[in-house]
Amino acid sequence: MATLHPRVDEARLEAILTEVARQLLEGGLDEADLGQLGCTTVSVQICPDHVQSALDAGACRVAVRAGNATQLSTLGAAIDHTLLKPEATAREIDTLCDEALQHRFASVCVNSTWVKRCAEILGGSGVLVCTVVGFPLGACVPEVKAYEARRAIEDGACEVDMVLNVGALKSGDDAFVRRDIAGVAEVCHRLGARLKVILETCLLSDDEKVRACRLAKEAGADFVKTSTGFSKGGATLEDVALMRRTVGPAMGVKASGGVRDTASAQAMLAAGATRIGASASVAIVGGGSARGGGY
Amino acid sequence: MATLHPRVDEARLEAILTEVARQLLEGGLDEADLGQLGCTTVSVQICPDHVQSALDAGACRVAVRAGNATQLSTLGAAIDHTLLKPEATAREIDTLCDEALQHRFASVCVNSTWVKRCAEILGGSGVLVCTVVGFPLGACVPEVKAYEARRAIEDGACEVDMVLNVGALKSGDDAFVRRDIAGVAEVCHRLGARLKVILETCLLSDDEKVRACRLAKEAGADFVKTSTGFSKGGATLEDVALMRRTVGPAMGVKASGGVRDTASAQAMLAAGATRIGASASVAIVGGGSARGGGY
Repeated sequence: MATLHPRVDEARLEAILTEVARQLLEGGLDEADLGQLGCTTVSVQICPDHVQSALDAGACRVAVRAGNATQLSTLGAAIDHTLLKPEATAREIDTLCDEALQHRFASVCVNSTWVKRCAEILGGSGVLVCTVVGFPLGACVPEVKAYEARRAIEDGACEVDMVLNVGALKSGDDAFVRRDIAGVAEVCHRLGARLKVILETCLLSDDEKVRACRLAKEAGADFVKTSTGFSKGGATLEDVALMRRTVGPAMGVKASGGVRDTASAQAMLAAGATRIGASASVAIVGGGSARGGGY
Repeated sequence: MATLHPRVDEARLEAILTEVARQLLEGGLDEADLGQLGCTTVSVQICPDHVQSALDAGACRVAVRAGNATQLSTLGAAIDHTLLKPEATAREIDTLCDEALQHRFASVCVNSTWVKRCAEILGGSGVLVCTVVGFPLGACVPEVKAYEARRAIEDGACEVDMVLNVGALKSGDDAFVRRDIAGVAEVCHRLGARLKVILETCLLSDDEKVRACRLAKEAGADFVKTSTGFSKGGATLEDVALMRRTVGPAMGVKASGGVRDTASAQAMLAAGATRIGASASVAIVGGGSARGGGY
């Protein structure tokens, strides 16, 4: 989260922060730029290893907050508005972005082929572009996941949801799983993006869920996330609570897959989630429910 | 297919060819090497743009065959023995390789995280390693697919099954779809591998299937393939026949998804398929059938 000079209103706030973040990413921001953006004092949330860049860019104060577990003021601000089905068209992606803007969702979550298009539509709006890596099987080699993340961030993604290597976890190769996540985390944090690690909980035993959470935390991920929406099951309250207990209060927990109405979304947040992944987001914030499965 | 000096028996044949192909890929093969391999005359099937490398490596005769539509002597030799579920363990992958060796399947088809392991087990056996790219959604950017293919081939894959960008096809962006395939085809052929393009027929209209086949052919793919096994449906006889009519006799057609018994596999071949993708391969060659779905 970010704080800003009080003269700047809330609607303008997010647009400014997004633009600042973009310019920081692109390597440089000076006082003239800040003036053009309509403010003279600004602080943004960035990864610890980007503090120096921020100082170089003109920051005069550094504040520390407790990670991603900040209380969210509205339900919509906790939702990644998601469209990952492979047959989604450019027109459907545009509608997704329009809905995200209208309802002020946290992000749109799309396949990487659409990241650049979404970043162009949403640029400066405060609605982020989230994408997926190694999705939905998580079974490509670590170097491909890292490369895919880098490309997506360069195209405009600010959040990356990678799938854990489930087969390696089940084969007992924890070192491989950790290295797989750490490789993507390094890319994300170097380039200023956040990393969520999808466990695909429906394929895991409780012990495996706990191991996966610990490995994600050790490897530097920002969130753990329940499900891809493409396997046998989605988020459950029990899994979200288990994940929250395991990672502690400072990491994010994203509940995704099968969250289709307001009550379910609120229950997930109450169980410890800080983010919801859903395709039925408009129904969720409207207080209704949507038919149909997952993404 | 390949021909060999008649003194070399058939069991040895495939081992030699695999070793020759491997050494050609690694950049060089001289007469002393051929002598060590137990033969003085050898011809291998390679992509057209590798003929010069083969000549440089000591080839003295170049023969041309009509692509991949060669009549297959056994059912097993037409099967890509497939295990793509994300929770597959190292032990299950080893079993897959053992079964492929025992039944002389064309290849094992695995996620790229397992390619190196399979290549080590199968090296020199004549059973190839096939892997998947952009799988199963086909919705990552072209550069990621090309990179993923290159990494997999470097790890030992000889065949690459990529997923078409279905959303781009449905959005009418044929140029993008063609470029997406051509990028992977260029990598595959430069490094001596074959490319299959998965259409995900269950998501396409007949017109879209025809467009997809034409784009795959124009972009230089070696095969078109029906399905990932992870969507709403698998191969049908009608789709296989349509794909064969569209691509003509010289390209390969792979039927995959839902092929679970001998009769279905034979019917697919009769309809125009030259390759079958199946997880129930052992039952198929045993004359039986297996329960359960797809991969």
